[in-house]
Amino acid sequence: MGKMVRVNMTDKKVTVEPLPEKYAGKGGRWLSSMMINDEVPADCHALGPNNKLVIAPGILSGTRAPNSGRVSVGGKSPLTGGIKEANAGSPFPQNMARMGYAALVIEGLVEDGSLWLLKLDINGGELVPADDLKGKGAYETGNIIWEKFEGKPAFVVNGPAGEAKMTMAGMAFNDPEGRAARYAGRGGLGAVMGSKGLKAIVLDDKDAPGVKPVDEEMLRAGQRKLADSITSHDLTKKGGGLNSYGTALLINVLNEAGGLPTNNFRSGVFEGAKKISGEALAEAAEKRGGAGTMGHRCHPGCIINCSTVYANEDGSEHVSSVEYESIWSLGANCGIDNLDQVAEMVWICNDLGIDTIEAGCTIGVAMEAGLAEFGDGEKAIEMLKEIYKGTPLGHILGQGAQFTGEAYGVTRIPCIKRQGMPAYEPRAVKGIGVTYATSTMGADHTAGYTVAPEIAGVGGSEDPLATKDKVSLSKAFQDTTAFIDACGYCLFIAFPILDIPSGYEGVIETVNGMLGTDYNADDVLRIGNEILRLERDFNMRAGLGKEADRMPEFMKYEKLPPHNHVWDVTDEELDSFWD
Amino acid sequence: MGKMVRVNMTDKKVTVEPLPEKYAGKGGRWLSSMMINDEVPADCHALGPNNKLVIAPGILSGTRAPNSGRVSVGGKSPLTGGIKEANAGSPFPQNMARMGYAALVIEGLVEDGSLWLLKLDINGGELVPADDLKGKGAYETGNIIWEKFEGKPAFVVNGPAGEAKMTMAGMAFNDPEGRAARYAGRGGLGAVMGSKGLKAIVLDDKDAPGVKPVDEEMLRAGQRKLADSITSHDLTKKGGGLNSYGTALLINVLNEAGGLPTNNFRSGVFEGAKKISGEALAEAAEKRGGAGTMGHRCHPGCIINCSTVYANEDGSEHVSSVEYESIWSLGANCGIDNLDQVAEMVWICNDLGIDTIEAGCTIGVAMEAGLAEFGDGEKAIEMLKEIYKGTPLGHILGQGAQFTGEAYGVTRIPCIKRQGMPAYEPRAVKGIGVTYATSTMGADHTAGYTVAPEIAGVGGSEDPLATKDKVSLSKAFQDTTAFIDACGYCLFIAFPILDIPSGYEGVIETVNGMLGTDYNADDVLRIGNEILRLERDFNMRAGLGKEADRMPEFMKYEKLPPHNHVWDVTDEELDSFWD
Repeated sequence: MGKMVRVNMTDKKVTVEPLPEKYAGKGGRWLSSMMINDEVPADCHALGPNNKLVIAPGILSGTRAPNSGRVSVGGKSPLTGGIKEANAGSPFPQNMARMGYAALVIEGLVEDGSLWLLKLDINGGELVPADDLKGKGAYETGNIIWEKFEGKPAFVVNGPAGEAKMTMAGMAFNDPEGRAARYAGRGGLGAVMGSKGLKAIVLDDKDAPGVKPVDEEMLRAGQRKLADSITSHDLTKKGGGLNSYGTALLINVLNEAGGLPTNNFRSGVFEGAKKISGEALAEAAEKRGGAGTMGHRCHPGCIINCSTVYANEDGSEHVSSVEYESIWSLGANCGIDNLDQVAEMVWICNDLGIDTIEAGCTIGVAMEAGLAEFGDGEKAIEMLKEIYKGTPLGHILGQGAQFTGEAYGVTRIPCIKRQGMPAYEPRAVKGIGVTYATSTMGADHTAGYTVAPEIAGVGGSEDPLATKDKVSLSKAFQDTTAFIDACGYCLFIAFPILDIPSGYEGVIETVNGMLGTDYNADDVLRIGNEILRLERDFNMRAGLGKEADRMPEFMKYEKLPPHNHVWDVTDEELDSFWD
Repeated sequence: MGKMVRVNMTDKKVTVEPLPEKYAGKGGRWLSSMMINDEVPADCHALGPNNKLVIAPGILSGTRAPNSGRVSVGGKSPLTGGIKEANAGSPFPQNMARMGYAALVIEGLVEDGSLWLLKLDINGGELVPADDLKGKGAYETGNIIWEKFEGKPAFVVNGPAGEAKMTMAGMAFNDPEGRAARYAGRGGLGAVMGSKGLKAIVLDDKDAPGVKPVDEEMLRAGQRKLADSITSHDLTKKGGGLNSYGTALLINVLNEAGGLPTNNFRSGVFEGAKKISGEALAEAAEKRGGAGTMGHRCHPGCIINCSTVYANEDGSEHVSSVEYESIWSLGANCGIDNLDQVAEMVWICNDLGIDTIEAGCTIGVAMEAGLAEFGDGEKAIEMLKEIYKGTPLGHILGQGAQFTGEAYGVTRIPCIKRQGMPAYEPRAVKGIGVTYATSTMGADHTAGYTVAPEIAGVGGSEDPLATKDKVSLSKAFQDTTAFIDACGYCLFIAFPILDIPSGYEGVIETVNGMLGTDYNADDVLRIGNEILRLERDFNMRAGLGKEADRMPEFMKYEKLPPHNHVWDVTDEELDSFWD
């Protein structure tokens, strides 16, 4: 992987360059965050000419290492104002890596409002006019690409929300069946893509040379250990929790723990939880039959298969995938307990090209502001449709939960660094709150998923309501996660490797096999921390210092039922994260 | 002035307290910023229960010192996120000081959405229900107060925008004729008032003991020197520039200097400038006759009289006052060259209770976003009316220029610390740009008016296009201004006292006479700087560090006609402001 592609939208030049030495052996989040930190002025306008997008497959993407098909997208976030890495599982990074490209950098701006599609093959690429795709939904755009281009190519597209530079817009990568539905969703990178006048990127991987590990044998040995751990852990094995119920298996679990944010974070318990649980999802898949299925996968090489396809009552496909975070945000957080309505909202979000977490937080805040009643699914669907229409209300909602709250003078806004909180109440699960507050990404569960020991009993067991040692717990998770994100591994390998030492060894061996390095477990933490610190460096220069590492004020004085805890990790403890 | 009043909106308690010793001898901005810094957590939600409003007359308010009728309002700004002091000229601070109150602190929140009116007399005060005033315009509210309460009392009211917690809402103090039209306008303090459920404050100054200077004679001597300088300087004397043409005399001056921001800061020259100039204003006053007049005053004791009353064609009153900043923001900055349309917009802004500078910047940005054509006055008026209606568009516009730009993905947003820039193009007048960037208040010309030497030839003469020494120039102005704001003096005394040394002596003597202090010119700068540093301290704790002291990026790469300068004071120079 010694090459990178640079695309200048201003003069429409596409250049293949050798990857600078300093980036050798980097991948995924490591590479995207390094490049953004190196090339983007931290104080630039995120939608202006000086921001860039970096798309980077993980270090192991394109190999046979299981679950290594994550692609990282980096840029300055128009939502948080800080650095952003959002990743998605898709065939895209596998193909891109096999084509020999370690990174794709998109820079400059189209000045005349025209829209472009980037075609890449192993010899380079070109920008072709795409004004005919203007305003088209992500789904339709993906379908047109699969019709128009040979070989069912991997792609990434931008939806209408990204075109309109809305900060809840994500970038939609294809799944193995060509659905534009695998999102690098958080932080508004679709808005950056939109600002640049780029509608889609299509990979033609014909004659791709493939990925050449330095030590094939070691990679293979590591891969086997990792695969064995995945296929033997209760959460990730075939017929295990994730495979049977999807990520939504967490709905009942969090609800029982009193940590499922309900009605814009007014309670940790949702009466209608069972009706939107993973169990309900699996039951619907079985009952309705047809296209509906559990155990779908987002990329070839995945051996967990936690994705889902949700069917209409007649068995026809409604939407894929219906994830825990989406069911929570668009369901429980809005007081909505109807899976069909939630599925419809997920479809609309996907087609608009917006982050479902941010969308659900936004509707929750809009309900708080009195724009609809909690539980009114029809009204929630109508609100999402305003975003398509580009009405003033659509422009408010499209900018996310913080923005919507500000538009209506709401004080209960569940955001950190202007990014909406995910599906775990920080007052009920304190470690994940520390992650939300301290993550360079804004409120983000994937940055350091302490929910594993706090709720799922994975990697030990921690009292979710206790505050003690939660900063060090979050730190260990965040460091490790940054490394996993560099590899291109799916975060769900964390479950087995936390509990099964040989799985963790396997991960390190796959990296060493791929790169010829001699990394050990200490290096994992060291490299992860190095990634976080360069992201933090960017954020500091962008004006996001420790004062941005704060829980929303209302969580400090409002007690959350049923445990009636406030947020009580002190600011000083949070600040110690960076000591 | 040894007393203060504390009003708790949560339990409806009004308490008269002795003024703590540490606040003795402070007034205006000095006192409001100290109290906010002491009592308000910098990281609180500005519309939540932990923010406060402090209303403080200047040190000299209530005395016979000329032009000393400015009242400071302090709080955490919901617009900038930092500390805010906004001041207005009105009979209010004169009466409040004479009643013996150095400060009025409003804290807590009404929880049930009810609305209240605060009555104060020399024995204390009470909150009375004011739900009947809900949604009423500032003008009507003021009129009702003058009808209902005896003695044509001084008052301050909140308009519908403040009730709706919009961050461009200001607080409207009365003028001598009872118009609710003298604004502590900037930074959204009306939204804070709205969040607290307070619609109006009415002062009953019956039996007010008056203000007792420590050294009456010295005060009188200083007062004469200051008055002499005011009445002899070309800009401030009777029949001088400000008296004859109002503040709008600057329209032609700035236009000729290429520094009148036009069409959302796309040019420094406006073709229609003459039609909206101070000269045009004076001509209209003469031609139309009737209520229209130049030389109006905002408070008794003013001897400059730069305020105006604008008449309709039939001579009936249209609006008071039509100021330079308003004509620029709602006129030139929106490409509108029709004074009647501008006057109508000023009336609407006043009645809504919003800051005209922010309103004009917002409409300029909305035009940039394509919501209307530059120059379309009818459409601009319609847009302002959306704010009354509380439509989604009204909720966008009501939150100001930065917010509106963000709603529509605009990169050309002329704001610093989220506050819209006033009427001087920083690329053409570099010193005022330094003030915009470094002021603790966000973009604010009144914080350090280097325009005096850069454009008006007052206090020396500086090349407006040069960058050299502009940081020290701005610093000297900002330090001095903070002291003037502490005194309750109108900023326009700066013109004579910059040019006439005895006038400056007079200012210091009035303070020493009032307080029994021994301040000299060094103390003025020292005290001023002390005020700035405590405001800066608040801002740092609120997360507004040096990265917030920045010019909008587009001004760094886009050349401004006619001089074709970019903003070229470096960030390092700006940072040296706080060294």
